[in-house]
Amino acid sequence: MAIHLGANQYGKAENRVVRIYRDTPRHQIRDLNVSTALRGDFEAAHTTGDQAGVLPTDTQKNTAFAFAKEKGIGAIEDYALTLGDRFLEASPAASGARIAVEEYSWERILVDGQEHDHSFVRSGAGVRNTVVNIDGRGADRKAYVVSGISDLIVLKSTGSEFHGFLKDEYTTLQETDDRILATSLVARWRYDHTEVDWDKSYDAVKALLLSRFATIHSLALQQTLYGMGSAVLEEHPEVAEIKFSAPNKHHFLVDLSPFGVENPGEVFIAADRPYGLIEATVTRDDAGDSGSAWVNMAGFC
Amino acid sequence: MAIHLGANQYGKAENRVVRIYRDTPRHQIRDLNVSTALRGDFEAAHTTGDQAGVLPTDTQKNTAFAFAKEKGIGAIEDYALTLGDRFLEASPAASGARIAVEEYSWERILVDGQEHDHSFVRSGAGVRNTVVNIDGRGADRKAYVVSGISDLIVLKSTGSEFHGFLKDEYTTLQETDDRILATSLVARWRYDHTEVDWDKSYDAVKALLLSRFATIHSLALQQTLYGMGSAVLEEHPEVAEIKFSAPNKHHFLVDLSPFGVENPGEVFIAADRPYGLIEATVTRDDAGDSGSAWVNMAGFC
Amino acid sequence: MAIHLGANQYGKAENRVVRIYRDTPRHQIRDLNVSTALRGDFEAAHTTGDQAGVLPTDTQKNTAFAFAKEKGIGAIEDYALTLGDRFLEASPAASGARIAVEEYSWERILVDGQEHDHSFVRSGAGVRNTVVNIDGRGADRKAYVVSGISDLIVLKSTGSEFHGFLKDEYTTLQETDDRILATSLVARWRYDHTEVDWDKSYDAVKALLLSRFATIHSLALQQTLYGMGSAVLEEHPEVAEIKFSAPNKHHFLVDLSPFGVENPGEVFIAADRPYGLIEATVTRDDAGDSGSAWVNMAGFC
Amino acid sequence: MAIHLGANQYGKAENRVVRIYRDTPRHQIRDLNVSTALRGDFEAAHTTGDQAGVLPTDTQKNTAFAFAKEKGIGAIEDYALTLGDRFLEASPAASGARIAVEEYSWERILVDGQEHDHSFVRSGAGVRNTVVNIDGRGADRKAYVVSGISDLIVLKSTGSEFHGFLKDEYTTLQETDDRILATSLVARWRYDHTEVDWDKSYDAVKALLLSRFATIHSLALQQTLYGMGSAVLEEHPEVAEIKFSAPNKHHFLVDLSPFGVENPGEVFIAADRPYGLIEATVTRDDAGDSGSAWVNMAGFC
Repeated sequence: MAIHLGANQYGKAENRVVRIYRDTPRHQIRDLNVSTALRGDFEAAHTTGDQAGVLPTDTQKNTAFAFAKEKGIGAIEDYALTLGDRFLEASPAASGARIAVEEYSWERILVDGQEHDHSFVRSGAGVRNTVVNIDGRGADRKAYVVSGISDLIVLKSTGSEFHGFLKDEYTTLQETDDRILATSLVARWRYDHTEVDWDKSYDAVKALLLSRFATIHSLALQQTLYGMGSAVLEEHPEVAEIKFSAPNKHHFLVDLSPFGVENPGEVFIAADRPYGLIEATVTRDDAGDSGSAWVNMAGFC
Repeated sequence: MAIHLGANQYGKAENRVVRIYRDTPRHQIRDLNVSTALRGDFEAAHTTGDQAGVLPTDTQKNTAFAFAKEKGIGAIEDYALTLGDRFLEASPAASGARIAVEEYSWERILVDGQEHDHSFVRSGAGVRNTVVNIDGRGADRKAYVVSGISDLIVLKSTGSEFHGFLKDEYTTLQETDDRILATSLVARWRYDHTEVDWDKSYDAVKALLLSRFATIHSLALQQTLYGMGSAVLEEHPEVAEIKFSAPNKHHFLVDLSPFGVENPGEVFIAADRPYGLIEATVTRDDAGDSGSAWVNMAGFC
Repeated sequence: MAIHLGANQYGKAENRVVRIYRDTPRHQIRDLNVSTALRGDFEAAHTTGDQAGVLPTDTQKNTAFAFAKEKGIGAIEDYALTLGDRFLEASPAASGARIAVEEYSWERILVDGQEHDHSFVRSGAGVRNTVVNIDGRGADRKAYVVSGISDLIVLKSTGSEFHGFLKDEYTTLQETDDRILATSLVARWRYDHTEVDWDKSYDAVKALLLSRFATIHSLALQQTLYGMGSAVLEEHPEVAEIKFSAPNKHHFLVDLSPFGVENPGEVFIAADRPYGLIEATVTRDDAGDSGSAWVNMAGFC
Repeated sequence: MAIHLGANQYGKAENRVVRIYRDTPRHQIRDLNVSTALRGDFEAAHTTGDQAGVLPTDTQKNTAFAFAKEKGIGAIEDYALTLGDRFLEASPAASGARIAVEEYSWERILVDGQEHDHSFVRSGAGVRNTVVNIDGRGADRKAYVVSGISDLIVLKSTGSEFHGFLKDEYTTLQETDDRILATSLVARWRYDHTEVDWDKSYDAVKALLLSRFATIHSLALQQTLYGMGSAVLEEHPEVAEIKFSAPNKHHFLVDLSPFGVENPGEVFIAADRPYGLIEATVTRDDAGDSGSAWVNMAGFC
């Protein structure tokens, strides 16, 4: 019987890089959580412990912080692409690099109605993120960008039905033509190429996802997600496909009849577990090959 | 040797009450986490297991949901006061009731620049809360309201110094005249009475805390907190005292000199643990007695 | 109107101190989370930002680590007492010190049935902790030790009833003479003095709490807790009082009758929220004064 | 431009199923977290909202609880296989089912040295889990079982070196021939078939992983993981491959020299973030095809 090393990856996870731009009195902040990883021919490191080809995770960390100053941090996608290329340059044994970045949003504090120059409050809905994968170098280089948003908690208090479903002997669910629909959305969309105005695209996709969640009359969370994803593909030719992972955060109508109180869709209990979990991909037929875009990510998001 | 029951309290914690107002097409939402507790003469329940005087925690839960419809949910302080009085009425053995409520904030989703009628996104900075304590009934009734905010994450990228501190043989900290100051603020303020426009007072105190955090030139987190608290007391006669619990979320300047890169206050690592923890009370000299206001709360917040 | 500083406290929280004893090939490990704080006359630090009397939280951190070597770490109570005295010695402005320590338990990994010398696995039930408060120095010194355990998750699958409770118009709970009783116990007990074999006392109290939880036929969680606490006081003269905070982790019997399946106490759903929360103190009549023992702790635990 | 639905999956996540066996006074407990999902031809549900082919997630939940009684819960792998087949039988549109189960371990409480019949305490190291995937029915049926353990926190206080690594201009890490090695291990192993004594195999694999972690002299976490995985494959012919995700939980030696204190490997600070993250697969050359075994799982674990 022979045994061998299969897929592998190593790096430094969750570098909390905070970059302040202070060239003028009006400071800017970019607040990131950066995880880097390399994959490739690291057989010796595993089988004999020989580290000659291994660029330490500590070095990856140092580079993430140094590049925050040397290269600056604009859109997180650009920062991630730059880091990925650097690691492939510095690590001959690596065949691919994976850079994942989360960005936390800050708003300026208002003082007498005016935005303060250097004081901020964490706010906003959802956490922006990107996962960049680069395979190879020079002429063989291929770069894949998957950007997304997580923790986008949305709710609609009507405009959601659920009925006509398959029933078996374990089915007790009642049909409904009016319920609360709520989820903590995770969405990731793969870009078809890298000639993208990242910040602009992100802002527009996020706004579109929210808008369609609001306006689609829902017959199921699946149908809502598909409609949201279709809208993104229709309006954003730069996006090749989009994946969703959406817990159905159940809000159960509370039975107040024992107390002689009617409850026509007004009082709910927000439940924790179990929850429905809906995951789906919407893709365009002519999308380019996804290559390494989704490597080492969970099935959906 | 004799043994006896000391302080005690029982109730139902973390009822996730969601109330939708749908009287017009423009729905309203109040999304709460409600914890109720009773204290008093519950000796028999503990020593012999006799439950004759114990209003079950399940009943407390039912009441919290039923009142969301019967009494409605306006300001969380009013809802909590109403619940507290109800429990004292229903439970003769109880001498006091404690109702704690958190409220999660939702904003309307924008569709083509317009606020949607019934679709919302969780947003906003900080979580509003209140802890109401009521002692007694009728002529003996005393009510105490402590309201607050948690998870208010703020940061200033300059305007913060720290120097002139006490040194001993274990001191290695360097003095600084420019650092990042950041915290995840918890603040609780005790109201002097209950004749308050709760929503208005909350909004104003929150805005004032943010504004003063921004504008106070900091010589220490202690001094910033004291300045914030003093401002609240000065501008809000309805507030008797205010308590803060503020982790000093350290942002350490990264040493990039090994790479020949200068770092004049631009690249930081946000650290997790350990963290400074600053807790303080600011109070007015003529404040009324705090009575049961802070009962069963941690020392500060 | 005059405003003044009230109660205050500052320090370094959550120092993750890991101490390895390696004097012989059979290593020992003590793995701690240490939080230190000082209270006293720190008016100037708050009102004017003058730090002349403030021993930095960074120095407190350094001391916690240095003492792990200089003084060693035996029982966490001894380590905390030593640190507290040190800070009062180093900080003339402080009137009191509060040292809180959690200890994570490790067991030796078994290799061919033998305990390994230097390899460990995190295991065991519950997290041991202590909170030490010291007021004053020299002849005026008073030390208070409150030790405890958290995250002690216990369950009994029978031997628990709940009936005979007070009913009002919001009561729907059915009485039961057989239910699952489960909690994630937090217990803290105050020692009457400091002449205690800490490790031995802790081990015995923990074993007794578990044993009594098992053997008391429960008529309510209150009665179970009181019985557990009484047993500790009866068998441990060194303990003056004990406080519990115990969520009633509801396990609801699942109704399988729609599927023609009986469920005589066999299939349950473990619920998250809401949960009952039972808090109680058991104390001995002749206990010494608690002084600062519970300062800046939540009402119960 | 045409748009279509890609990969999708839906189900009920985190059903907290607790099963008590009480046929004799000596009760048994199996405490599970069960997540079920179906995949297949659910196009209509997404594109038009037609739910005719959709077995509700609520029905999946009901089935998980009912089967806990009807079929019983032995090894979690058997329970998951039974559930998966049931869902494929009940849902003609589904082409595959995915059942993930976590099991929490309980030990009997000791009373006077004897194990109690019906009282338990949560204990033990690590959380056992399985992910079962079934494709098709009848003659076409293929079943895949991936079992594993998470949260297995291990540490060795010596016997770990790290040197000889690749260096670039961002490398500052010092080489070491003695450090703490610690991780919170996640391991998942794919079974080659389903004719396995699941409980026995799990216990043996877990013991072997621990034992090899202890005894392998480490030159890098990669090499330790490979050695652990190789041992499993060598001793367990029923295992086709094993994947690891292992954060390198850094324990940094604290510099006590400013205080004139030596620190020869005795006092460490346990760091939170960033952390190294090592992920690897060890596989046997003659392993059967993995088919759907890893579908919708993250790259490694």
